[in-house]
Amino acid sequence: MIARAAAEELDRTDPLAGFTDRFVRPPGADRIYLNGNSLGPLPVVTVQRMASAIRDEWGYEQSDGWGRWLNISERVGDLLGRAALGAGPGQVVLGDSTSVQLYKAASMALDARPAAEAIVVDRGEFPTDRYVLEGLAASRGVELRYLDCDPLLGPQPEDIARSVASGDVALVCVSLVGYRSAAVADLGEITQLARHAGAFTLWDLSHAVGAIEMSLDGAGVDLAVGCTYKHLNGGPGAPAFLYVRREIQAGLRQPIQGWFGSRDLFTMGPTYEPADGVRRFLAGTPPVLALVAVEAALELLAEAGISRVQTRSRALTGLAIDLSDAWLAPRGVELGTPRDPARRGGHVALRHPHAETLCRRLHDAGVVADFRRPDVIRVGPALLATRFVEVWDAFDRLRRLATEPAVHPH
Amino acid sequence: MIARAAAEELDRTDPLAGFTDRFVRPPGADRIYLNGNSLGPLPVVTVQRMASAIRDEWGYEQSDGWGRWLNISERVGDLLGRAALGAGPGQVVLGDSTSVQLYKAASMALDARPAAEAIVVDRGEFPTDRYVLEGLAASRGVELRYLDCDPLLGPQPEDIARSVASGDVALVCVSLVGYRSAAVADLGEITQLARHAGAFTLWDLSHAVGAIEMSLDGAGVDLAVGCTYKHLNGGPGAPAFLYVRREIQAGLRQPIQGWFGSRDLFTMGPTYEPADGVRRFLAGTPPVLALVAVEAALELLAEAGISRVQTRSRALTGLAIDLSDAWLAPRGVELGTPRDPARRGGHVALRHPHAETLCRRLHDAGVVADFRRPDVIRVGPALLATRFVEVWDAFDRLRRLATEPAVHPH
Repeated sequence: MIARAAAEELDRTDPLAGFTDRFVRPPGADRIYLNGNSLGPLPVVTVQRMASAIRDEWGYEQSDGWGRWLNISERVGDLLGRAALGAGPGQVVLGDSTSVQLYKAASMALDARPAAEAIVVDRGEFPTDRYVLEGLAASRGVELRYLDCDPLLGPQPEDIARSVASGDVALVCVSLVGYRSAAVADLGEITQLARHAGAFTLWDLSHAVGAIEMSLDGAGVDLAVGCTYKHLNGGPGAPAFLYVRREIQAGLRQPIQGWFGSRDLFTMGPTYEPADGVRRFLAGTPPVLALVAVEAALELLAEAGISRVQTRSRALTGLAIDLSDAWLAPRGVELGTPRDPARRGGHVALRHPHAETLCRRLHDAGVVADFRRPDVIRVGPALLATRFVEVWDAFDRLRRLATEPAVHPH
Repeated sequence: MIARAAAEELDRTDPLAGFTDRFVRPPGADRIYLNGNSLGPLPVVTVQRMASAIRDEWGYEQSDGWGRWLNISERVGDLLGRAALGAGPGQVVLGDSTSVQLYKAASMALDARPAAEAIVVDRGEFPTDRYVLEGLAASRGVELRYLDCDPLLGPQPEDIARSVASGDVALVCVSLVGYRSAAVADLGEITQLARHAGAFTLWDLSHAVGAIEMSLDGAGVDLAVGCTYKHLNGGPGAPAFLYVRREIQAGLRQPIQGWFGSRDLFTMGPTYEPADGVRRFLAGTPPVLALVAVEAALELLAEAGISRVQTRSRALTGLAIDLSDAWLAPRGVELGTPRDPARRGGHVALRHPHAETLCRRLHDAGVVADFRRPDVIRVGPALLATRFVEVWDAFDRLRRLATEPAVHPH
């Protein structure tokens, strides 16, 4: 039996407890938001920063604002690298959607391995990754080779080792944290295995960034992309990022040769010359206002510290797992997420044959989570905003719903 | 002699005069903003709408907001079509940057003409267009054929007719309004000429949209793109748009197969199936907050009416030309924009050997315009915000500066 008092105690001793008040909460005290893995909540500071960027920068400075906006993609990219990626400066840019960043990164990898014949991806990978790679593979005449990885654990080093053994693979695309199971893949091991076989690894960090600590530089990662609207709290449809390791930048050219990636924006010369450094991976004009929101949220994350956020994430998801074991397992709910805290990201998957109904009723009961076909409820605390007692209360509601006849007929 | 009273009279009789108060003005009465062709000014309504979208939609509704955001690209696209493009519903999407939209559109055109061997573009075309096409041409093994069009008039139907006569052209890319000269190209004639020779025309509307009235549907245009941060007042780095004529949508597939272009976002099936209709041209998650800003500004434009905005644009630029003729021509300034009101967009190019110095001093004197190498000052009234008397005052300052020794030594 896990008493509510135990969750209250976790809140009392939480070193990041002060951050829970720094997010906007919907009016009405009763709502519990456990969908931070889909859309992070709104930081209070973002409200102020956006108002100021809109009025003071766009409204008052008008086009003179370009003095500060011109390098906003790289500036926020450096902050993201420092705060969440373990990446030194000059390796991260922001802008475009994750799909577009994926396309750019994968295209560059294929260009750099013209003799290779295949791309490798897990059949359970997030759709946009599979679809973008499918389109690229078709247009380049290379094979898209699907892995059938364990749905709970995701791609393992052995899976990757087997897939690249033939030596004809240009690119392996892997999510660091699986979007369903939240399983964490082995960043360093997979990167090295693939490189050893002559393949690039393209990491999708969308569900990992802001939830787990990582060192892209330390792991020797070549290419990574990810979104900023989940655990980074950048806002709906916030711009994505692209990481390219410094040492390989000069050898790569991206497919979308927009002016913001050119050497000198205002020379407007007769032919495209890519910029030195990471700026060459930009395409069009950066989405300034959206990047201001990302920057504000990243400063909050930097203040909290990703290591402490990871600790808090493991404690929040750990509590969710304990409550699921105690209350839901007897009612037919199965855990779809690794139990080892070091192997899971910032959300928990609960599997149940009537997951869709359960998720809808949970929403009616004031708890926002999300349903993934066919049988998964994803419970994703907002890692800086959700209180432990909210997780307890949400599972308390869930436990009642799971005994209702429509969901659990016996 | 054009008296200030004449400009005051134009303001008095201006049917859109009321709109000039509906934009935020920088503190300090003395500043005159004539760079609306680069970055449109901030509408007052946008301040309120953004604050509400951030707090009420993102902050309070959280991920439930997707109920209204899911189709925001198409919804704002339809509004844009109606308000500014002469395009019926279901043909316009917003999102990505202009460079990315150009890339997508040009790729589709090349895919649809696999036997063709060339892309045609004016050597004086905006750099991002040339660069994106250059990259695509290289990767597809087709030729990028440059036109040398008249720098004042831009691409003429004869230029296009000659360029496509060989019958091996897949794509002609033309700006409807030239970014330097503001010359207007012949939308219908060029589209028909190119089509007759089996080529697609891809129109870049970045400098045209919100300044001139057009009918993409009426002209039979196939593909068009453009940005929303100039005369549409969408904000710095606001998302771009893509128009694809309804009749050809089903036959085209875009290169970046992101999940937002798939038939059913939540089925997440094994392979990419493009959506029916214009949604297939989306790639990643739409930039929601940025699109709210575009929507607010478009509603303002719709209220003013593009036809009346065009009339006002011609009057504002006409006044600028008259003042330039009267005051600046004797001081060595040459007009770089067509005199025929029907042949020019929303800005005026002034050419002078010391344009850079002149533009900098003009800025110091409180007038914001922009300099384009080597010798052009672009004077771009904000078409709904700038008063006629502001144009007069700006040219009055310019006339004084043009007589200073560093600029005009004799």
